[in-house]
Amino acid sequence: MKENKIPYKIYLEEGEMPKYWYNLRADMPIKPAPLLNPITKEPVTLKELEQIFCSELAAQELNETDAYIEIPQEIRDFYKMYRPSPLVRAYCLEEKLQTPAKIYYKFEGNNTSGSHKLNSAIAQAYYAKKQGLKGVTTETGAGQWGTALSMACSYFDLDCKVFMVKCSYEQKPFRREVMRTYGASVTPSPSMETEVGKQILKEHPGTTGSLGCAISEAVETASKNSDYRYVLGSVMSMVSLHQSVIGLETKTALEKYGVTPDIIIGCAGGGSNLAGLVAPFMGEVLRGEKNYRFIAVEPASCPSFTRGKYAYDYSDTGRICPLSKMYTLGSGYMPASTHAGGLRYHGMSSILSELYNEGLIEGKTVTQTEVFAAAQQFARIEGLLPAPESAHAIKAAIDEAIKCKETGEEKTIVFGLTGTGYFDMYAYQKFNDGVMSDYIPTDEEINQSLSKLPQ
Amino acid sequence: MKENKIPYKIYLEEGEMPKYWYNLRADMPIKPAPLLNPITKEPVTLKELEQIFCSELAAQELNETDAYIEIPQEIRDFYKMYRPSPLVRAYCLEEKLQTPAKIYYKFEGNNTSGSHKLNSAIAQAYYAKKQGLKGVTTETGAGQWGTALSMACSYFDLDCKVFMVKCSYEQKPFRREVMRTYGASVTPSPSMETEVGKQILKEHPGTTGSLGCAISEAVETASKNSDYRYVLGSVMSMVSLHQSVIGLETKTALEKYGVTPDIIIGCAGGGSNLAGLVAPFMGEVLRGEKNYRFIAVEPASCPSFTRGKYAYDYSDTGRICPLSKMYTLGSGYMPASTHAGGLRYHGMSSILSELYNEGLIEGKTVTQTEVFAAAQQFARIEGLLPAPESAHAIKAAIDEAIKCKETGEEKTIVFGLTGTGYFDMYAYQKFNDGVMSDYIPTDEEINQSLSKLPQ
Repeated sequence: MKENKIPYKIYLEEGEMPKYWYNLRADMPIKPAPLLNPITKEPVTLKELEQIFCSELAAQELNETDAYIEIPQEIRDFYKMYRPSPLVRAYCLEEKLQTPAKIYYKFEGNNTSGSHKLNSAIAQAYYAKKQGLKGVTTETGAGQWGTALSMACSYFDLDCKVFMVKCSYEQKPFRREVMRTYGASVTPSPSMETEVGKQILKEHPGTTGSLGCAISEAVETASKNSDYRYVLGSVMSMVSLHQSVIGLETKTALEKYGVTPDIIIGCAGGGSNLAGLVAPFMGEVLRGEKNYRFIAVEPASCPSFTRGKYAYDYSDTGRICPLSKMYTLGSGYMPASTHAGGLRYHGMSSILSELYNEGLIEGKTVTQTEVFAAAQQFARIEGLLPAPESAHAIKAAIDEAIKCKETGEEKTIVFGLTGTGYFDMYAYQKFNDGVMSDYIPTDEEINQSLSKLPQ
Repeated sequence: MKENKIPYKIYLEEGEMPKYWYNLRADMPIKPAPLLNPITKEPVTLKELEQIFCSELAAQELNETDAYIEIPQEIRDFYKMYRPSPLVRAYCLEEKLQTPAKIYYKFEGNNTSGSHKLNSAIAQAYYAKKQGLKGVTTETGAGQWGTALSMACSYFDLDCKVFMVKCSYEQKPFRREVMRTYGASVTPSPSMETEVGKQILKEHPGTTGSLGCAISEAVETASKNSDYRYVLGSVMSMVSLHQSVIGLETKTALEKYGVTPDIIIGCAGGGSNLAGLVAPFMGEVLRGEKNYRFIAVEPASCPSFTRGKYAYDYSDTGRICPLSKMYTLGSGYMPASTHAGGLRYHGMSSILSELYNEGLIEGKTVTQTEVFAAAQQFARIEGLLPAPESAHAIKAAIDEAIKCKETGEEKTIVFGLTGTGYFDMYAYQKFNDGVMSDYIPTDEEINQSLSKLPQ
C-alpha cells in the first residue's frame, strides 16, 4: 500500500456542505436552446410549464441568470441524512492497475434509493409540498427514480403515484416493494387507470409497456387533478441544477486536500448526474480560470452524443412534453435491451448537449460486456458492486489509468460512481453465466430514426 | 428541526480508527465456559481447534488473557475501504416520536455485503492467507455471511467455497450472484460433492436443506484438503473479538462529542454483532468504571436468551463442532420460518451467555410483524431500509424512546443497525401485502427440544 496523506474516503463536515446549488447556465456564454411548446413550436412560457411541473421547479427550469440558488433548509436537513457522499481515493484499484494515475470517485450510492436520484427527488417533493399540492406522479423504468421519489414523498407526507413499465414491474419486484414500503402506489403501465393506457391496451393487448407510455400515463393522471403535478428525474435543466450538489461537494473535498483533477468522467443517459458532477468545474473552464478534460460515457447501444444529431426533438415518446434541442437518436429510437436501464434514453440534457456541441466535453462509447467486466473487476478490487450505469464511468476511468501507465503520466482522474448494483443482479447473473451479448446499432437504424425528427 | 451541535452523522478520521481489537474476556472475572471436544467432552485444545480453523483464529478463540489484540495492517487497510461506519444521530426519528430521548445508531450496512459480517470475514481471510492456505469453506443461509466472505477472499485471492442452503440458493438468487461476482463457488446444499450430502440426499431425496447440513458439508470439504480450513461467521469468541471494532468506533465517536449512553441495544442471533457493539462498554462495567443498560433483542420465534437454558450444547445440528456452554433452545430446535434468517440460531455466543447469566444484559423478544412495522416506520422517517435482523433493535429502541416520552427522561439510546434489507424485499412484500404472520413456540415445543440436550 502506498504511503499517503489523503484518506481513503474524504467526508466533508456538515458545515462544509453546499448551501447553494450552482446553475451552470448562468456562466454559459451560449445558453442551451429554449424548450419549445410541442404544439405551437414557440418557446415555452413559465405559465405553460407550470401546468405540468411545480411552479418553483418551472421557474428553475427557465432560470439562466442566477448562478447560485439557495438550497432550502428543509432540503439541506434531508441531505444531511445521507450526504455528504464520500469522495473515495481508489488506492486499491491504482495499486492493482500499477498506474501512476491518482483515481478518485464520488460515490452516490450510500442511500436506500441506491443512486444520486435522491438529490433531485427530495427537492422536487419539497417544492410540491410547499406549493400545497397533495401529491405527484411519475414514471419509472428500472426503478431507481421511482424509489428515490417514494422516499422523498414519504418524508414530506406527499402522495406518490408511480407508473412502472409493466415488464419491470413484473421482473423487478424488489424495487417495486421498496417503493411500496415507502408508501408509494405503484401501477404497472399501461394501465386501465388512464385514457392513454386504455387506448394502448386496446391497440396492443398484452403489451409489457414502455417508458414513453408510462410518462404519458403519469402526465395524464397529474393533469386531471389540480392538486397533483408530474415530476421527472433526469434530462431537465432543473434536475441538473439539483445534481450540482455532487460536483460542489467533490470540488470542496478536492480543494481541501489541494488536489486538482485532470480528467472528470461520468456516465451519460439523460445526463443529469454528469451535468451535476461537472457543473462547478465546467464553470471554471467557461470563466477561463481552469482547464479540464470531461468525458461523457454512453452505451454503444444508445450513443446519443457520439452518433446522434444536435436538433430539436420530443423528449418523450408520447410527444406531450416540450421539445428540447439536444443530441438525440430520435424519440422513436428503441434502444436495444441493455441492463443499464438508466442510460437507455434517446436524448441528452440540453445543457450538456450545448457544451458537447462546443467541443467542451468528449464522448466515448463502451459495450455492455466490457462494462460488466469492468464492474466485476472494480467490485473485486474496491469492494463495491456498482450499478451497470455507473460501471460505464468505471470502464472509462480504468482505460485512462492504463493510458497513464503506458505514458508514465501521473494524471488525477475523478469519476462519478452514481449508484450500487444490488437490484441489478439479474444482469450480473447473465454476465456470470457468460450469456451476455453486445448490441451496436447500424448506421441505417440510426438514420432511419433520425429521419423522423420533427421539422 | 432541533438546534444541535452534534452532526447527523459522526465519521471518525482515519487516524481515530481502532488499531486493536478489544478482547472482552480478559476483563471478565468469570470467563465463558470452555469449548468441549464433542467426542471426549474434555476442553478442546489449540491443536484440536487447528484441525478445523486457521491456527491464528484458533489461538484467538482460546485467548482469554490479552485485552487488546493488534489488528494487522492489511486488515486495517481493508477496513479503510468501508469503515469507519457512521454513528448516526436519529434526529428525524426523535422528532417524529416527540421523545426527549437522544437516539444514535451505528450503521454497519454501507458496504456491498450489506452488514457487519465483513468485519470478521476479512480477518478470517487474512489469517487463512497468512497461513499459506489455498482457500476456505463455509456455509450460508440467508447469504450475508457468504457474501462478506466472498468479498474478503476475493481481496486476498483465496478460493472461497460456499455451501448455500438449497432453498435459499433457489429463492435468493441475487445474493448467490453477488457471491459469484466475487469469484466464490456456490453449491446448493445438500450436494453430491460430500459424503454427508450424499447420505442426506439418499435419506431425504428432494430436501431443500438446512444450515446444519450445510455446515457439515463445509467442514467435511475443508477436512479433506490440508490447504483449506472451515470458517464461521458468528457465535465464536474470535468473531466477537473482530466485531469489537463496532463498539470501539462507537465509543470513540460518542466520547468525541462528550456523549455517554444510558442504554445500548442490539439484535442477537449468534450474538457476534451485539458482543462487538457492547464489548468496550461492558468492559467499563466489569472494571467498575461505568454503568449502562444493555438489551439483547431476539425474535419471539427463536428466544434463546429469554426461554432457553444455560447449558452445554452442540453448536451445529451436525454435532461435529465443539460443544459450547450457552443459552440454547437445543441444537435440534427448528426455528419457525422467519425472515430474519440471521437470528434463526438455536444458541448464543458463550461470552454473551455468561454475561446474561450474571444479569448484566437484559433480554427482550419481539414478534415478526411488530419488527416489520418498526422497519417500515424507520425507513420512512430515517430514509434507510433496514435488514429484518437489524429491525429487532430498531423496535426495541423505539419502545425505549416512547418510554422516555412518557416519563420525560432525556436518556441517550444507542443501537446497532447491522445491515440493509435490500436483499430481503420478499419479506417486505409479505408485510406490504398484509400476509405476514407471527409464530411463538409453545412451552412444550421448547421443553421437548431442551430434553435432548447432551448430558
